Amino acid sequence: MDRLENVTPFIVMDIVRKAGEIEDAIHFEVGQPDISPSEKVFDALHEAIEKRSFPYTESLGIRPLREKIAGFYKNRYGVDVSPDRILLTVGTSGAFLIAYSILMNSGDRLAFTDPSYPCYKNFSNIMDIEPVMIPVDSSTNYQLTVDMLKEKENIKAVQISSPANPTGNIYTGENLKELTKYCDENGIAFISDEIYHGLVYEDEPEHTALELSDEAIVINGFSKYFCMPGIRLGWMIMPERLVRRAEIVMQNLFISAPVLSQLGAMGAFDEIFLRDYKEEYRRRRDYLYGELKEMFPIDAKPQGAFYIWADISEYSNDSYAFCMELLEETGVAVTPGVDFGSNETNKYIRFAYTRNIDHMAEGIRRLKEYLKNR
Amino acid sequence: MDRLENVTPFIVMDIVRKAGEIEDAIHFEVGQPDISPSEKVFDALHEAIEKRSFPYTESLGIRPLREKIAGFYKNRYGVDVSPDRILLTVGTSGAFLIAYSILMNSGDRLAFTDPSYPCYKNFSNIMDIEPVMIPVDSSTNYQLTVDMLKEKENIKAVQISSPANPTGNIYTGENLKELTKYCDENGIAFISDEIYHGLVYEDEPEHTALELSDEAIVINGFSKYFCMPGIRLGWMIMPERLVRRAEIVMQNLFISAPVLSQLGAMGAFDEIFLRDYKEEYRRRRDYLYGELKEMFPIDAKPQGAFYIWADISEYSNDSYAFCMELLEETGVAVTPGVDFGSNETNKYIRFAYTRNIDHMAEGIRRLKEYLKNR
Repeated sequence: MDRLENVTPFIVMDIVRKAGEIEDAIHFEVGQPDISPSEKVFDALHEAIEKRSFPYTESLGIRPLREKIAGFYKNRYGVDVSPDRILLTVGTSGAFLIAYSILMNSGDRLAFTDPSYPCYKNFSNIMDIEPVMIPVDSSTNYQLTVDMLKEKENIKAVQISSPANPTGNIYTGENLKELTKYCDENGIAFISDEIYHGLVYEDEPEHTALELSDEAIVINGFSKYFCMPGIRLGWMIMPERLVRRAEIVMQNLFISAPVLSQLGAMGAFDEIFLRDYKEEYRRRRDYLYGELKEMFPIDAKPQGAFYIWADISEYSNDSYAFCMELLEETGVAVTPGVDFGSNETNKYIRFAYTRNIDHMAEGIRRLKEYLKNR
Repeated sequence: MDRLENVTPFIVMDIVRKAGEIEDAIHFEVGQPDISPSEKVFDALHEAIEKRSFPYTESLGIRPLREKIAGFYKNRYGVDVSPDRILLTVGTSGAFLIAYSILMNSGDRLAFTDPSYPCYKNFSNIMDIEPVMIPVDSSTNYQLTVDMLKEKENIKAVQISSPANPTGNIYTGENLKELTKYCDENGIAFISDEIYHGLVYEDEPEHTALELSDEAIVINGFSKYFCMPGIRLGWMIMPERLVRRAEIVMQNLFISAPVLSQLGAMGAFDEIFLRDYKEEYRRRRDYLYGELKEMFPIDAKPQGAFYIWADISEYSNDSYAFCMELLEETGVAVTPGVDFGSNETNKYIRFAYTRNIDHMAEGIRRLKEYLKNR
């Protein structure tokens, strides 16, 4: 079978391209922050360039950044993580590739929710891993549960994301605890995609899977909370016994993560910047949620990340056609639900609130007009 | 079977780490230039940082750089290549991953020489592709030939590198022509790793596989000739019909190549810089080859890249042990032949001439002393 037969285009990237051709497009499509990273990142970058040389780094990544990340887990979550368990990757994408390579062989089964980030499925297919997509909906606030896992056989690994893309929901600490316990007891690897950590607008503390299990594999990076999607830098934390396997895959598939990105990211852990930045995102969420819920039912409470999952079934049963027509007629770019799976995804579209409120307000104006005249 | 069972550590990266712990080590181990890239790269980087934002790019990569690369093929080789056929990748490593994904499925067979760049074999294993390693030696100047291919069945793709790592040999235009013709006629994909192009010390013109076949897949990047290994940026040129497949894999596995690297590389095509830099490498080759051939038989004429493949069989039949002992006793780091395959590779070690002549001269002094007292 063609390795790519079931690999779908990453539809949002196609929408990005199409929207890029429209002069006054309104961008709700792509999940990338429009805010510049901390000033300290720029200082670090200027310093990095002054070294005038761009060598490969150690395959695990530069030690000082791995130490900073370890410090981040201590400060933020109170968890001790040795820098020796941290690998710097080429985006979280690179971390998925490594995690899947070290955990699963051809034909092994990986479970995750439907809907979810489209690349989970596509990575699986490219690597000849069988994706087991488990339908979730508002009845569990779009969370995977132990009961759902129990119904599936021969699961080798489970991957969750919290806050989740595309639904913006957050896993409760209790559910996370049950999931990690079940996986640990049953020899199932637990991969926790925490790329939207930090972008949480609820008052409860965030939980990393590292608090709950020494066996969990945690993936995070600098693309979302740290505002640097294009530098393609992520990290992966794993049990010590897997580090050498991961290092061997990293050496071979990547050599090392980009050096300028690693050096620049040394400036990223700027607590004052990060606090202010999150508040801006909270305002954006409040604004967009307030507007959208007047137009569409929203059954996933947007608690984190920067997405709202809106039900368009009143208007269409083809989310791709809906988004294309909307883009062509109004210049408003939104991502069709079908990018994220096949569980009722034709009923949904995903809004990203990654642009400022003025920009979004113009989009809302056009959207209202469009729906009125439909 | 464990996907990683036959994946070997990238030994040179382990040697790099060990050498890094030795204060006055002499570095012949790693293939990365010690020379800063063109001044124009720094100008481009400063300009890039001033934009103060690091977005994802189009998955194919920024158009202006793809146009510059197309221009490079026109100027250098007289070949017309549409920028639409060029994909910017995360190093040439990322290009291998994409090329293998779009060309081969589980169980398909990929042919390449033994010895060769260790990652060809390891990429194959990680992706469940069967590596078919074809022994080569000085009788064909370490080139793969059509006769060798004819002896193998069910080959789906062939990969060569010229100038070659670890042997520094160059494929003749005639042999390249025969190989591409044979592959085209037999429906075998031809992957030409041209990462060491430009670093050629012979007077004959260089040939890219693009001159010879519209079906060839050409891989190159900014790590060697352009002196920026750590920015992790490569490119891949393919027949138009494969571009969409490659784009889909790129979207999913990488999203895009690092944006700062792409913008910085806009300054890389600086002909005056590149000419002077190559001359420096020619001097280094002449020096190191002159010294080494007094100590070891060298049956691969070092015509390009920055490597010399030296026969140590007079001293040892275990190239790993030889290199480790040499490193521990003298601080001279060299890469064992076994990193590159299993065809007589215990008889060889690889020297990289990526440091200046003074540095190498100290290494030669220690090496002579060591061999004398052995």
